[in-house]
Amino acid sequence: MVIKGNFLYTPAIDKTVIQKNAYLAIRNGRVERFYKALPEEYAKEKVIDYGDAVIIPAFNDLHIHAPQLINRGVGFDKELLPWLETYTFPIEANYADSAFADRAYKIFLNQMWAAGTMRFSAFATIHKAAAWHLMELTEQSGLSACIGKVNMDRNAPDYLCEETEQSLEETEELILKCQKEFKNVSYILTPRFVPSTTEKMMAGLGRLGEKYDLPVQSHLSENRSEIAWVKELHPNSKTYTDVYDAHGLLRKNKTIMAHSIYLSGEEKNLLQEKNIMLAHCAQSNINLSSGVMPLRKNLAQGLRCCIASDVAASHTAAMNRHITASIGLSKINWLQHPEETALQLTEALYLATKQSGSFFGKVGSFEPGYDFDALVIETDEMGGMLARTPFEKLEQYIYAGDDRNILARYRRGKYIEKPFAL
Amino acid sequence: MVIKGNFLYTPAIDKTVIQKNAYLAIRNGRVERFYKALPEEYAKEKVIDYGDAVIIPAFNDLHIHAPQLINRGVGFDKELLPWLETYTFPIEANYADSAFADRAYKIFLNQMWAAGTMRFSAFATIHKAAAWHLMELTEQSGLSACIGKVNMDRNAPDYLCEETEQSLEETEELILKCQKEFKNVSYILTPRFVPSTTEKMMAGLGRLGEKYDLPVQSHLSENRSEIAWVKELHPNSKTYTDVYDAHGLLRKNKTIMAHSIYLSGEEKNLLQEKNIMLAHCAQSNINLSSGVMPLRKNLAQGLRCCIASDVAASHTAAMNRHITASIGLSKINWLQHPEETALQLTEALYLATKQSGSFFGKVGSFEPGYDFDALVIETDEMGGMLARTPFEKLEQYIYAGDDRNILARYRRGKYIEKPFAL
Repeated sequence: MVIKGNFLYTPAIDKTVIQKNAYLAIRNGRVERFYKALPEEYAKEKVIDYGDAVIIPAFNDLHIHAPQLINRGVGFDKELLPWLETYTFPIEANYADSAFADRAYKIFLNQMWAAGTMRFSAFATIHKAAAWHLMELTEQSGLSACIGKVNMDRNAPDYLCEETEQSLEETEELILKCQKEFKNVSYILTPRFVPSTTEKMMAGLGRLGEKYDLPVQSHLSENRSEIAWVKELHPNSKTYTDVYDAHGLLRKNKTIMAHSIYLSGEEKNLLQEKNIMLAHCAQSNINLSSGVMPLRKNLAQGLRCCIASDVAASHTAAMNRHITASIGLSKINWLQHPEETALQLTEALYLATKQSGSFFGKVGSFEPGYDFDALVIETDEMGGMLARTPFEKLEQYIYAGDDRNILARYRRGKYIEKPFAL
Repeated sequence: MVIKGNFLYTPAIDKTVIQKNAYLAIRNGRVERFYKALPEEYAKEKVIDYGDAVIIPAFNDLHIHAPQLINRGVGFDKELLPWLETYTFPIEANYADSAFADRAYKIFLNQMWAAGTMRFSAFATIHKAAAWHLMELTEQSGLSACIGKVNMDRNAPDYLCEETEQSLEETEELILKCQKEFKNVSYILTPRFVPSTTEKMMAGLGRLGEKYDLPVQSHLSENRSEIAWVKELHPNSKTYTDVYDAHGLLRKNKTIMAHSIYLSGEEKNLLQEKNIMLAHCAQSNINLSSGVMPLRKNLAQGLRCCIASDVAASHTAAMNRHITASIGLSKINWLQHPEETALQLTEALYLATKQSGSFFGKVGSFEPGYDFDALVIETDEMGGMLARTPFEKLEQYIYAGDDRNILARYRRGKYIEKPFAL
């Protein structure tokens, strides 16, 4: 396959590469190389020409709560813990109902598609059947994901509180079924967060992680009240991070910890050593008045950080808006801390494409060998009366665009249609 | 006319009124009163029933640069002064071309309509013909606005720098034509900001303000470098605010000053005494790393503050996103200043409807006698499977909605269609 257009991608955090009016050869869904003029050997290939549009790597979102998407925007006059109790747990209870889950998860996947997020890592709910259905629908959609049933067996309302053994059994059942039946969906262990999971649950999940060599996702150090609560629940652990580590839940290279705002130097060193992905969720942290992750400092230290949505503590699945939220928050932070320079657009794009893509392999860039996951973007509304560089089109899409500016979506070289009619 | 639905409005900053399944009688475009059941006298009236949708006052945006809308999103890696020179002045230069201005202003008005902004106060450019054309198009659109040609005769690139006398003559010409020909558009004096206007220009505009009893709009105290520059240009003026005041440009009850971030106590007292409208532009202030207006303190003091867009230092005309930006910024500010409590949604809605509407008269509420400027909002995507209160629908629209959630728009009782086909 050959695609023609203006390609823009970020092979490194401080580097934007633009291939103007270039031909991109794609083989077996992977990027082969760019050409200025198409060589003889491709003479018989069909060339898809996207004209003046800009083609960028698709987004990867490493922290999202699929069942909460339909609740986006509700309840942001509250902070994390009361928000969970008042709005979030009640919405998750609905997923015991299969008709509700079917419609809500189709809406979720349509929104991910609309947003240009071709890969994600999602929390489901505690409900085995609904989690399985989300995996099935995701496989059907053409998108790719890590998905986990949530585990929670303490400090949850009765209707969401699990019996530990049964939860672990159901988890193992899903792991095995998932490995057997899906190509594009894999299982990720998903303890909700320390306050919701007993030591027995965490240890059991740690054992499953070891047994099947699985990735893990959870929340870490989001809010001051939450951190105080963890301290109270685990007085003998040195830090919040240590609680996960002690139970085998900081799995090297394959763990996502959302938020990670208030970390000590020691915690940071451990997270760096294990190459844990810290999912920075700026819009969520603003909505719930949680705090400001020192992203610039974390990046300077070499911590593995990406930009993620955290729907529905954020209010949209659209990763372009999480990029702008991250930049905006870094600018406000810079006003207080002039040594922590603000995030540039190139850096933020990298964190939402290549950096988050690294969780799935060679994903999120147009370097040779990378999966061709791409979005074709057009922002022109002046009918060509105003000349725009590819970078300006990128800027306009990231700041002011929405799904209507995405003309086409690809995942591993395949054109992806809107998944579900509703 | 009678409209049925769930009405939601904010008669005071801390008060949301919800009229569920109510009938609203509208006479001569103005709100008469609500009824739980429709009285006999209306038996023959046609009732427009919006079912489960939520009906809220339309937005009023008191600070927007109409010519810059097509540039939204471009150049936010820079601060105010370099951003102006690199991106904003060059785009404004295009408005010397009437074909360009025609298309760009139609796009602008379509976007205002889409956003649900039924009234606004806009800067045009220095170009008399284009400014006049924007006024004509606005009158045609069914929206209502204050619009001013920009005046600037110093510290501007050659292609945007005016000769003072001619600028004042052109301004007076537009004032007179505008008074004669329009019902829904009125002239507002629009010195760009102190650094761009000589004392002679400011004094001339002050005289026009007095002669025709006109409103004024400008920028005040947005960025630390800008403030230092004003001090350098006017070493004998005590403050930035004083420069405007000394030239008759703080016209009592009818002046809008955008940003107003870094104000001394003395400046605040003067602005309060003159009842100046301070347009808080949170998204802009974030994008250009300008600073944080102490909104909570200003409101507590009784300063007249509203929420505005400041396109294109912000990246969207959509007022719902400026509401969320203001709330978000106030939450981040609260983390640093716990005594300045964060803005609640009700408060922010008030600042973008009734407070900004006060600049146009009885506008921005559904109290008796108010112009019926309204938006009909629907956010349901679960096909009724998930019950939502009117306030939750409001939350979902404000945080997660866009123009596709607005089913109908009214201004002074009139249904407003999309203004222009392009």
